[in-house]
Amino acid sequence: MQLAERMAHRAIGSTHPNPPVGAIIVKDKTIIARGWTQKNGSLHAEVHAINQVRNKKQLEGASIYTTLEPCSHIGKNPPCVDKIIKYKFLKVFISEIDKNALVKGKSIKKLRKRKIKVIVRNFGKETRYINKVFFDSLNNNRPHITLKIASTADGKIATKSKKSKWITNSVSRQHGHMLRAQNDCMLIGRGTIVEDNPSLDCRLRGLESFSPDLFILDSTMSIPNHYKIFSNHSRNVFVFYSDGKKRSNLNKKNIKYIKISKKGSELSLGEILNKITNLGYMRILVEGGSHLSGSLLKNNYVNEIQWFRASKIIGKGGVDAVSDMGVSNMKSTKNFVLLESKNYGNDILTIYRKK
Amino acid sequence: MQLAERMAHRAIGSTHPNPPVGAIIVKDKTIIARGWTQKNGSLHAEVHAINQVRNKKQLEGASIYTTLEPCSHIGKNPPCVDKIIKYKFLKVFISEIDKNALVKGKSIKKLRKRKIKVIVRNFGKETRYINKVFFDSLNNNRPHITLKIASTADGKIATKSKKSKWITNSVSRQHGHMLRAQNDCMLIGRGTIVEDNPSLDCRLRGLESFSPDLFILDSTMSIPNHYKIFSNHSRNVFVFYSDGKKRSNLNKKNIKYIKISKKGSELSLGEILNKITNLGYMRILVEGGSHLSGSLLKNNYVNEIQWFRASKIIGKGGVDAVSDMGVSNMKSTKNFVLLESKNYGNDILTIYRKK
Repeated sequence: MQLAERMAHRAIGSTHPNPPVGAIIVKDKTIIARGWTQKNGSLHAEVHAINQVRNKKQLEGASIYTTLEPCSHIGKNPPCVDKIIKYKFLKVFISEIDKNALVKGKSIKKLRKRKIKVIVRNFGKETRYINKVFFDSLNNNRPHITLKIASTADGKIATKSKKSKWITNSVSRQHGHMLRAQNDCMLIGRGTIVEDNPSLDCRLRGLESFSPDLFILDSTMSIPNHYKIFSNHSRNVFVFYSDGKKRSNLNKKNIKYIKISKKGSELSLGEILNKITNLGYMRILVEGGSHLSGSLLKNNYVNEIQWFRASKIIGKGGVDAVSDMGVSNMKSTKNFVLLESKNYGNDILTIYRKK
Repeated sequence: MQLAERMAHRAIGSTHPNPPVGAIIVKDKTIIARGWTQKNGSLHAEVHAINQVRNKKQLEGASIYTTLEPCSHIGKNPPCVDKIIKYKFLKVFISEIDKNALVKGKSIKKLRKRKIKVIVRNFGKETRYINKVFFDSLNNNRPHITLKIASTADGKIATKSKKSKWITNSVSRQHGHMLRAQNDCMLIGRGTIVEDNPSLDCRLRGLESFSPDLFILDSTMSIPNHYKIFSNHSRNVFVFYSDGKKRSNLNKKNIKYIKISKKGSELSLGEILNKITNLGYMRILVEGGSHLSGSLLKNNYVNEIQWFRASKIIGKGGVDAVSDMGVSNMKSTKNFVLLESKNYGNDILTIYRKK
């Protein structure tokens, strides 16, 4: 099951609107296949694993381990549970019952009716966390937001003259690209794009096609047309705006404009997150800037923070990682749980999760 | 020798003006004694170890491991090397030759003349670091400065209304007290004292007597008499000032005033550090505030940073851990080496060292 969890991990960030699931098939104490949810709406993990086995007779009497209850409804794919029955599996180990109303234990019933032994054992914290992201998005319309921050030891993301190249080292930056591959989409504020003109794609070799779709906050639609974010045509770019007209000269197929109402002087974040979830995205990576990070934190929207810290100090006057949230007493600080830390050379990555 | 290093560690912060040294005596493959430098100017590690052995005949043919070359000169104590000869040790293992001009290999020569085998092997990074602090103070008149910072994840040491109780948890704070015991003295800015009225002693049970002496920056001598720092009479408190007169109503034996010249509008840091070293202190712990930390960092005086970070966020507007150092481009950031990280519950301690 631990291995199944790792398979699920492999799928994170590329499966939406499906949940990332991992599956392992065992026969005579030997692993004969591994599977994970395939890209956007294609094969589920169980079927992906089953397909690895050429001689389907081998599956008779085998066990399958899966991190989430197999589906029993027809979506883009026929139900996985039917394949498990068809190939005469002996046992099905499930880490968690699917909270999707369309499944929710139905598959287990169906399997048991056919005398297939089903064992449900909530395996690991991490599997539960992965599945929770899916349930939250499905049942509560809440996406999973990961904030990525690359700062100095004292929490600055740029010098007073807005220089930030490079605060963190190349290992940290590569891991940052990995984060892009592990999320369905990215949400970025106008300031960051105008300052840095970033490409915001995944440049790890072999993972280029995992560059996430982009959501840009640009209330007045004033980001210049020639900026890099508009030049990659193999992914979707959504621009949230409130004022101004759709630009005719940027009328490319992959660029879409979404009008958002204002809350005070700013685009409504709640409305933005709803739109993103309704489009089927579960995992959003936010790479700043300071103002967007602050707004998300202030509204308790952030589920995870991946904080890369270089062993450098800028001091007061540098640009803060998080904008003013009006915190005046210790009771109103935004509190997280320390999950883990990893050293990347002279940088340190600390991962925080929502309480 | 690893054990000897640990013994040396035990002595850190209480031996000035002596260096913290550890010693182990081995006879017939058995450790028969352990020793470490005793409090300010009393027993050296080797003699402390020798004294553990009741029957001095046992020492004949024994080996002694020590983290620093034994002394051969008469200070407050007779030379250690004479005792080693007197008790007929067979071998002396030394981690590093003393760079103190009064010793510097002389002891080794003396021992070898008496046919005692001397093996010098630079044992470990940490031993070298401990000894370097002593050599730097002795030969370069430079004290070892440890900066302790307790901040939020985003590097704030207080909210905008200066609330800071408590940012870090009780485990971090206890470790903070340990740091006090491990330093010879503390240097604190006026602001921190006026804001918080701290006692700045070591309140760990059993280590109360290891509270370090205090150096206070108070250029106008305006810290009120009733403040806690003046109420502990068992340690020395030094007040650095430039203006104002010595207060007659605070004429206690343990409180001394030292006049410092000004550099611009501030007390000269270089002069302050010289005074502290000349008084025999090697290890200075600095617990802020923001302004003092910034000045020390800016002038490259900081050797080590012990940075406690809570998993909380305050955001812009909170008080920065480090004041403005005028860093405007990435080349002028203050860079350190990441030594290690430790989790203290939901806090994380990261230790940085000078490059």
